[in-house]
Amino acid sequence: MGNNKKFAVILSGSGVFDGSEIHEAVMTLYAIAKHGATYEIFAPNINQYHVINHIDGSVMNEKRNVLIESARIARGKIKPLNEFNPELFNALIIPGGFGVAKNLSTWAFDGPKCSIHPQVEAAIKGMHKLKKPIGALCIAPVLLAKIIGNATVTIGKDTSTAQAIESLGAKHQPTGHAQVVVDEKNMLFSTPCYMLDATIVDISNGAKAVVSEILKWI
Amino acid sequence: MGNNKKFAVILSGSGVFDGSEIHEAVMTLYAIAKHGATYEIFAPNINQYHVINHIDGSVMNEKRNVLIESARIARGKIKPLNEFNPELFNALIIPGGFGVAKNLSTWAFDGPKCSIHPQVEAAIKGMHKLKKPIGALCIAPVLLAKIIGNATVTIGKDTSTAQAIESLGAKHQPTGHAQVVVDEKNMLFSTPCYMLDATIVDISNGAKAVVSEILKWI
Repeated sequence: MGNNKKFAVILSGSGVFDGSEIHEAVMTLYAIAKHGATYEIFAPNINQYHVINHIDGSVMNEKRNVLIESARIARGKIKPLNEFNPELFNALIIPGGFGVAKNLSTWAFDGPKCSIHPQVEAAIKGMHKLKKPIGALCIAPVLLAKIIGNATVTIGKDTSTAQAIESLGAKHQPTGHAQVVVDEKNMLFSTPCYMLDATIVDISNGAKAVVSEILKWI
Repeated sequence: MGNNKKFAVILSGSGVFDGSEIHEAVMTLYAIAKHGATYEIFAPNINQYHVINHIDGSVMNEKRNVLIESARIARGKIKPLNEFNPELFNALIIPGGFGVAKNLSTWAFDGPKCSIHPQVEAAIKGMHKLKKPIGALCIAPVLLAKIIGNATVTIGKDTSTAQAIESLGAKHQPTGHAQVVVDEKNMLFSTPCYMLDATIVDISNGAKAVVSEILKWI
């Protein structure tokens, strides 16, 4: 084991409805370690858009911080995203969850007209400029479609999201469980995970597939 | 796949320092599904003992509910623990994290003299009475040592916790990564996980080992 390859992972909170999807985040970390690579975890030091009660879906009258909540998944080993330096990593990967669309960007509210947090945009652009791979799970590929011209990505089979992606000039390829769309030109790797009706085994397979594919190129 | 075996999983929040350890919880769910079995997730509908900032370890001036926070790991599919019926499950399993020692019990503060939440005690006693397997990861085996007379368990290699367990009349067996102690007489299955200095791969191996061992007996 051990291949000296280092991934940066960007989290967006801790919980599918207002942060990072926990299974996707954990399975991404596991896939990286299982393949003998290492990771550092980052998140923006900003308030969450809101806090959702994950039982009934209601908005809770609370404020939570994306970096502090992401630290739950990271067991405290996490850095603020403004400290991310693309030079120090071989690849970047972003698990899904509504945090991507509510905290890292405003996609959940504005769709293709969304804004993306400047630190997230800088991280993606920085890796892209260096021609380093960027992986994106679930809804996270919308960030790539928004930021990188002529990206090719997948978010599974959801037609309206696919159309929104294509309205940005990006190309969408439909996929099933654990399939990875590789955009060789831009070094983008995407897989649908919980954008499909999926089990936790599907999520693990998807995370393993995207990490394994990225490792072929670095 | 699919063996019709059904696990109940008890969570204690979402985050190692004040709830369920997230990697252990997710890897337990994954191991169950990967082996073709199914699960239902339960947690007590009570306030957490406290809320910990997982970056600096400080206590945050907030109140959070164990059931609501556990629902983040469960993606909303969770039931209050008072609805748990031992007759409906083949096995019970409890991931670790400080939530076991702060929310499900007072072990973190009172050690062997701890009290255990009545619903947790009822769940464990109910399964034990029916001679059904109970799995426990990390620190969770202390619940078994406290509730079940003459239990044999492991929490890894931590001497002071092992002595505290033996002071209850239980037997402690030291273990390394992914080793499982099987107490055949009481149908108890324990493995150390993050009670050792462990990687996320060790945690996955530990969760798979304990689930796989339990499945041999049901």
